[in-house]
Amino acid sequence: MIQIFTTGGTIDKVYFDANSAFEVGDSLLPELLSESNIHEGYRLRELMRKDSLEMNDTDRAAVLQAATESDCDRILVTHGTDTMADTAAVLAALKDKTIVLTGAMQPARMRRSDALFNIGFAWAAVQLLPPGVYLAMNGEVFEAGAVRKNLKAQRFERT
Amino acid sequence: MIQIFTTGGTIDKVYFDANSAFEVGDSLLPELLSESNIHEGYRLRELMRKDSLEMNDTDRAAVLQAATESDCDRILVTHGTDTMADTAAVLAALKDKTIVLTGAMQPARMRRSDALFNIGFAWAAVQLLPPGVYLAMNGEVFEAGAVRKNLKAQRFERT
Amino acid sequence: MIQIFTTGGTIDKVYFDANSAFEVGDSLLPELLSESNIHEGYRLRELMRKDSLEMNDTDRAAVLQAATESDCDRILVTHGTDTMADTAAVLAALKDKTIVLTGAMQPARMRRSDALFNIGFAWAAVQLLPPGVYLAMNGEVFEAGAVRKNLKAQRFERT
Amino acid sequence: MIQIFTTGGTIDKVYFDANSAFEVGDSLLPELLSESNIHEGYRLRELMRKDSLEMNDTDRAAVLQAATESDCDRILVTHGTDTMADTAAVLAALKDKTIVLTGAMQPARMRRSDALFNIGFAWAAVQLLPPGVYLAMNGEVFEAGAVRKNLKAQRFERT
Repeated sequence: MIQIFTTGGTIDKVYFDANSAFEVGDSLLPELLSESNIHEGYRLRELMRKDSLEMNDTDRAAVLQAATESDCDRILVTHGTDTMADTAAVLAALKDKTIVLTGAMQPARMRRSDALFNIGFAWAAVQLLPPGVYLAMNGEVFEAGAVRKNLKAQRFERT
Repeated sequence: MIQIFTTGGTIDKVYFDANSAFEVGDSLLPELLSESNIHEGYRLRELMRKDSLEMNDTDRAAVLQAATESDCDRILVTHGTDTMADTAAVLAALKDKTIVLTGAMQPARMRRSDALFNIGFAWAAVQLLPPGVYLAMNGEVFEAGAVRKNLKAQRFERT
Repeated sequence: MIQIFTTGGTIDKVYFDANSAFEVGDSLLPELLSESNIHEGYRLRELMRKDSLEMNDTDRAAVLQAATESDCDRILVTHGTDTMADTAAVLAALKDKTIVLTGAMQPARMRRSDALFNIGFAWAAVQLLPPGVYLAMNGEVFEAGAVRKNLKAQRFERT
Repeated sequence: MIQIFTTGGTIDKVYFDANSAFEVGDSLLPELLSESNIHEGYRLRELMRKDSLEMNDTDRAAVLQAATESDCDRILVTHGTDTMADTAAVLAALKDKTIVLTGAMQPARMRRSDALFNIGFAWAAVQLLPPGVYLAMNGEVFEAGAVRKNLKAQRFERT
């Protein structure tokens, strides 16, 4: 059983014409997993719907608490990319679970997006990695505490 | 020969991760027309890249001038939806050409969007309608001066 | 009120893994119209689900009968491209309605397809054209009896 | 460095209107990897373009030979689903490399497909798994020799 926590971020953004802005909407994860022939074996819970630039210490503490209280050993967290590394560092306090954070540079609702690949990538990573906290982005696995987003290159890289 | 003028608007919006915002990008029109097996018979010129809420009188005068100077009798204008009716009213000064404005409630780059249907719809309208200025949205043709966007219903309707 | 008749063809093809073949499935039209903000103003009836190469005289007579009996003056027919011109010639017996046939070279379920553009294009054509029978393909309107599919060029052209 | 071998199968199928059939086309992998922000770190070679029902012992021997001769320790093979388990069994002769086979139930060119998820999933699996031969399908990793396709359920399962 895989526990999925959604927190918002680009991956779940929707375009709202009413205010000409992209905002976090319903997570597409159940739909995308279903298209990928995955209909069970996971539980999904929405923790918040935030652009990750707006996440604060209280929010990160809430993610840590949810991960701590979960009775699943394998946890997938969808998260905005800008502060994904910060949340991973907070979650690293948890030693006995495999926690994988992923997200997307382009919303899953776009025709061309890294979202579906990243979810598939993270889905394998959370099943195969030993306990620890990891980022799964641009086809690479990074350990919490040793990764940063390179805003200019639009990629994650080791620190 | 159909003259296409692009002015920006939701239809051409792109998601920029760097600032977590949707901004007007390159027009997808040539790509979408090509996917629809239309490779010639039109000229495309970008007039501006604006959210239509930011278009002012000078911008609208520029669209009118471009339409006036074009040697094509059939002109398709892609435009943001919020002030599409305003630009249509300005263009209505032109009496001898068939001008059709269209756009989209969802960016053409989204998986689910009204953009491609609207372009196909406007493509027929600009060929079949007599001289005049029209809006082609939500599967209906509206005459300039007698149409408004119903922001709540997310549709255009007759006034 | 627009009457839509579906007959099958590439536009509605689905990939069936069980036999590694593309077969006609449920029409995507209601879903595509809904994405285009069209929720009413039409009636849809499935007449058959055939690759148009398999349509025979009896099938074409059935389409003519359905069009004759419809109380709508504007009729949109989705149809396979290979014999679309033949069915149009049969429908040309009907003089007092506007009938537009359209379809697609690539299934509507593909990422890149002419289906959505063609439906939008036909949607305008059926509203704007005078009584008659027409093909609406590759961004052009053709009159029944004066059009053929150029299989090599993958386009329709005047005869 | 990851070596990718493509062999055909549903994942790369294209719809050819000329003969109303789905046939294996160019692999979308480079495009899909690029959309997922993966621009290097792999080599891709097309071995064949076959529906996997048409693969014979000679074809499988060719895949084994290519895998043997590759100087990469991590090999990803895209393959039709019907005989993916058979090819995996042949590849199991190779003991010192991590080989992951994946594919799709729906072509990557469809709007809704398991292809992109599966590629992401396999991309992680080939990096994280110890030497051995594996199938990566429907969000699960299967060892060669202990897996079969359940045609009715359209899923892979352990034998």
